[in-house]
Amino acid sequence: MPEHQSPSPTVDVVVLLPGDRVVLVRRKFPPPGWALPGGFVDVGETLEAAAIREAREETGLEVRLDDLLYVYSDPRRDPRRHTVSAVFVGRASGEPAGADDAEEARAFAWDALPSPLAFDHAEILRDARTFLLTGARRRP
Amino acid sequence: MPEHQSPSPTVDVVVLLPGDRVVLVRRKFPPPGWALPGGFVDVGETLEAAAIREAREETGLEVRLDDLLYVYSDPRRDPRRHTVSAVFVGRASGEPAGADDAEEARAFAWDALPSPLAFDHAEILRDARTFLLTGARRRP
Repeated sequence: MPEHQSPSPTVDVVVLLPGDRVVLVRRKFPPPGWALPGGFVDVGETLEAAAIREAREETGLEVRLDDLLYVYSDPRRDPRRHTVSAVFVGRASGEPAGADDAEEARAFAWDALPSPLAFDHAEILRDARTFLLTGARRRP
Repeated sequence: MPEHQSPSPTVDVVVLLPGDRVVLVRRKFPPPGWALPGGFVDVGETLEAAAIREAREETGLEVRLDDLLYVYSDPRRDPRRHTVSAVFVGRASGEPAGADDAEEARAFAWDALPSPLAFDHAEILRDARTFLLTGARRRP
């Protein structure tokens, strides 16, 4: 099988906390802004395991994944290179604490999200809110 | 940003034809068996565009994507290397004709699927059938 120039698979997690709050991290590295916890997938690791690991590394929270929200793959979504992200929705308890690639991790009410939001995470958060309120997922 | 050893993103498509039939292709290259149309994603291409392109290349059908079924990422799913597949469900009309990496393309009734099925495509087809009958998706 020939080698193939591929986009890089990533994961992001919409981590819900009690009180209808969502966890975001303030990025330590460019591009700046607030983002969903997430990152690159390792060879030998499932997407689900990567999502749980990245949430733990960046927020200290142990997340239980409930659903796959959608996959986001616009080539312009990350200015550094083409990434494709599988976005999960999950739940955790406790309070987040930033670590690893996250300068800070905080829980926000849905009507008081911070800005700027990095990458396409404003769009993902809109899709997540719609899914949580109505059960409707984004369509291809 | 350091380079990272990543799994390779792929797409597969559950292509539905009138008469409650699903399209499978007989693979030209190892591993042998019948499979969903699909393949590797190009840099600069969305997952949705890759799914439509692979279905066209391998079956001659123009597919309209309806839903994302799930993402499949078990490191053992492809014996050649670690791939992560976004699987879409879509519809087409006409009759399939094998081309490109497909020796043959045919439409099958759900109760008369061929064997062997390559990769984890038996599992994906079970998930797709459940989704089509009940609306329930696989959970993380």
